[in-house]
Amino acid sequence: MGSSAAEPEVPKIPGYAYGSPESAHSPLIESDVRELEKTIGWTEEDAALLRQHGDLFCEQAEAMVDSWRAIIASQPHLAHWFNGPYERPDDEYKARVKPRFVQWVIDTATRPHDQAWLDYQEEIGLRHTPAKKNSADERHTPPMVPLRFLLGFLPAVTDIRRFLEGRIAEEATLQAIKRAWYKAVLIEVVLWTRPYTREGLW
Amino acid sequence: MGSSAAEPEVPKIPGYAYGSPESAHSPLIESDVRELEKTIGWTEEDAALLRQHGDLFCEQAEAMVDSWRAIIASQPHLAHWFNGPYERPDDEYKARVKPRFVQWVIDTATRPHDQAWLDYQEEIGLRHTPAKKNSADERHTPPMVPLRFLLGFLPAVTDIRRFLEGRIAEEATLQAIKRAWYKAVLIEVVLWTRPYTREGLW
Repeated sequence: MGSSAAEPEVPKIPGYAYGSPESAHSPLIESDVRELEKTIGWTEEDAALLRQHGDLFCEQAEAMVDSWRAIIASQPHLAHWFNGPYERPDDEYKARVKPRFVQWVIDTATRPHDQAWLDYQEEIGLRHTPAKKNSADERHTPPMVPLRFLLGFLPAVTDIRRFLEGRIAEEATLQAIKRAWYKAVLIEVVLWTRPYTREGLW
Repeated sequence: MGSSAAEPEVPKIPGYAYGSPESAHSPLIESDVRELEKTIGWTEEDAALLRQHGDLFCEQAEAMVDSWRAIIASQPHLAHWFNGPYERPDDEYKARVKPRFVQWVIDTATRPHDQAWLDYQEEIGLRHTPAKKNSADERHTPPMVPLRFLLGFLPAVTDIRRFLEGRIAEEATLQAIKRAWYKAVLIEVVLWTRPYTREGLW
């Protein structure tokens, strides 16, 4: 039997555990996700709008990641968490993480909020904490990205206007895509904060 | 000696500990704040723009709070954290918190990011966790607001366009105020997450 056309193709990216048994399993249940979506104001229209422009996110994902990495590189308090011992830039770590970061953009725009998606958000959260940082790549960068910078980076990652301009003709559509992206990212980042949080307070 | 005109007047609001010895003291130092501001992209221009429109925030603060509370009331998983025992709405708790919530809007738009401001953000964070929730009001609502809802409420609190429309003539200025408000709120919310976070991960 060949692979079904309906199944999303999982790219061969080292350490990319989306939908695989290597991914952590989220302890959350479906109603937790629905409550969070509702709080954030995420709608079916948001999901459909991003999916509909999935090709644009695919096309722009690497440029987006490059722009975010330029911001990180320009702020030593951010760059620190991606450096090796003695503050030496770890180019291998960055090179290994990059395709997953690019794929994250595409996944965030196009994947349904199902169990595989939820599980991988747990995995991504853990990979920003001492529980799993570096483990997928066997590197020696600091053991976490502090929560304040994970959250503080939201404006950078959600400021995607320039990647849409000239590609989305209508201003109202552009604004709607930008807003849907913001909510899609926020839902995931909030899920990533779970392993950072004291028992019972998440 | 009369009170100096230069000192900001501290309103007489029960439990409002801004700039008072009752406020918690933040363990952060100035460079922590500057790093966070830089990560978020907060600028002197943002601060000046919000201060310049301080009167508008004063005028709209209560309507903003009412609109946010309407969202909370419409979502049982949010309303729960403001209810008394047996899920009975605690109107006294809500009435006591409200003037502080309104004052928070004004403070966020107008206060400089100095030590008194930083200390009060620590206090606000603690008041959303078991360390201090209910303590200022001697009420019996649940002992926290879960981190996921504190963060998930960001889009509601930063969607202030309708409070600016008709009052800010230029669209570019309106957008700039909206963006500055988003960053001002995000900085504070990130500071509030400190007491939620596992040792060493903030």
